[in-house]
Amino acid sequence: MSAVSALISHSAIVHLHNLLADDMQRVNQATLGHAQSKVGLVEKVAQHLLCSGGKRLRPLLTIACSHLFRDQPGYAVQLAAAVELIHSATLLHDDVIDESDLRRGQATANRLWGNVPSILVGDFLFSKAFQLMVEAENQKVLEVLSKASTRIAEGEVLQLELLGDLNLSLENYLEIVGAKTASLFAAACQVGGMIVDMPVWLEDDLYQFGYNLGIAFQITDDILDYGPGGEKLGKSVGNDFFEGKVTLPVLLMCQNPDFFPVWESWFDQPSRNEDDFKAAQNLLQGQNMLETCYEYTKPFTEKALHHLSKMPAGVMRDALNALISWI
Amino acid sequence: MSAVSALISHSAIVHLHNLLADDMQRVNQATLGHAQSKVGLVEKVAQHLLCSGGKRLRPLLTIACSHLFRDQPGYAVQLAAAVELIHSATLLHDDVIDESDLRRGQATANRLWGNVPSILVGDFLFSKAFQLMVEAENQKVLEVLSKASTRIAEGEVLQLELLGDLNLSLENYLEIVGAKTASLFAAACQVGGMIVDMPVWLEDDLYQFGYNLGIAFQITDDILDYGPGGEKLGKSVGNDFFEGKVTLPVLLMCQNPDFFPVWESWFDQPSRNEDDFKAAQNLLQGQNMLETCYEYTKPFTEKALHHLSKMPAGVMRDALNALISWI
Repeated sequence: MSAVSALISHSAIVHLHNLLADDMQRVNQATLGHAQSKVGLVEKVAQHLLCSGGKRLRPLLTIACSHLFRDQPGYAVQLAAAVELIHSATLLHDDVIDESDLRRGQATANRLWGNVPSILVGDFLFSKAFQLMVEAENQKVLEVLSKASTRIAEGEVLQLELLGDLNLSLENYLEIVGAKTASLFAAACQVGGMIVDMPVWLEDDLYQFGYNLGIAFQITDDILDYGPGGEKLGKSVGNDFFEGKVTLPVLLMCQNPDFFPVWESWFDQPSRNEDDFKAAQNLLQGQNMLETCYEYTKPFTEKALHHLSKMPAGVMRDALNALISWI
Repeated sequence: MSAVSALISHSAIVHLHNLLADDMQRVNQATLGHAQSKVGLVEKVAQHLLCSGGKRLRPLLTIACSHLFRDQPGYAVQLAAAVELIHSATLLHDDVIDESDLRRGQATANRLWGNVPSILVGDFLFSKAFQLMVEAENQKVLEVLSKASTRIAEGEVLQLELLGDLNLSLENYLEIVGAKTASLFAAACQVGGMIVDMPVWLEDDLYQFGYNLGIAFQITDDILDYGPGGEKLGKSVGNDFFEGKVTLPVLLMCQNPDFFPVWESWFDQPSRNEDDFKAAQNLLQGQNMLETCYEYTKPFTEKALHHLSKMPAGVMRDALNALISWI
């Protein structure tokens, strides 16, 4: 997938947002409503992040998956908000951990208010998400979402443990991506169906649809971080490189003994500069490595399509099909 | 209460631990078992904190409160473990926030492994606690514990917002203490009874017992931080002073215009040294301020006794009565 086609199929997410505009407005209200607090600083930090214009992809999946089975999403709206709150909590903590200054083109909460409020408000949002999903009074939904939260945290620690390890295996890379990203995609999809009483025999397919979509999404995100294409999509690029994260493009480059020492020279340093990043981009382009990486998303998008094909046919399934192509 | 009598009645908690030794061993196993992870670093950090010899006061309350109503604690064991995991998660984050080097006489996780693992493993323990309590399949228990978690986070942010404010009102102080400490004490007690089907009309009393006990506990803890007495109980002293936290002794001293400027001269500095702390201790002792502070615990211990008196009489109620005196 070229950067240009990425831009074109970006419309798939816009199409889904248009289809589900009313529900997503309610999701937004529920998300912001539950980020309210009588403690002023909690609200300032939370609103700053929640109003910074994220794609709301995960709650969108929850709502869309509920509509695969029912016209009315019911409590899926609240669950979608809970999913977004979990995601937001991890973003606040991630930005502290990565010492990020910018997110979605704006100053991060940790830059504006320091690390401490970001840690605490992350905890607050996570607790609020928990409170909100408890209100669903659905045991299976709680099990799915609580397990996903645990896996996210494990994935983040595994990523930290293996940070800068240029011998990272593809297996470990996929384990990190599966835990820190795909598990929430999977749970977001599955609970959307569960809360509207989807047929039990399709539950695992809906989970697998979300999981494989999540892996493909994260691989694409890791590719875009080395641009070109990322910048055009409004993403800042080079974050993974500057933070010394070994993602798929790096992992594959380092399997070639000719290139391993070059990356080693960069990743052995405590920090890397813009010239290093440009050199890394040139190296990846010279080897067509980003195209190679896109090939790695295919088994996952194919699996996502396969599991989605088991769901009831209709407008929503078509829109989710288009979303897979976007990713 | 003098430091000497504090030492004597410390035996109340030992007595409770002896009474509930078998259950508490199972709580310990459940706590450590749920802190296991295939990610090595998660387990190292979590075990370091959980094996550092905390008093396990909160899970002890959950078990004791279940025994007010039933001989067998049933799922209260798992809920007690969940309560300890929530508490441990907040300790990991607190130590990062306060830049603490020592906890329970040992190096903190953040000192040994850095801030990042502490933040992430805190998130992991919190998620695990959530997973564990979901397994209880008890809607009311989930509502109580999720609400307590939210209040803890709000209390921590409020404390941060008002950090170093020497004009802190008693009302705000009690709001902070109520949220960050007493809410978990209250929930720990209440869910212990709820999970063994206590009479519904006693639920609020059990909550109020825990809440007032928690306030009295935190006030006492704040007093001990200015010693003497704290050191003898194995606590390090001076933490609140060095971190610039306005606790009850400081708040009361600063209501006197003669002493306000002295504290201002200390708290206006970015940091304070050992000589400052000794001077502060002397000032507090000269005004009998620590004794005055102990007077402030009385309305709360009295309320705790009152609510406890509604519970079924027996060995367990007697032991909890003795615990109130200890605190």
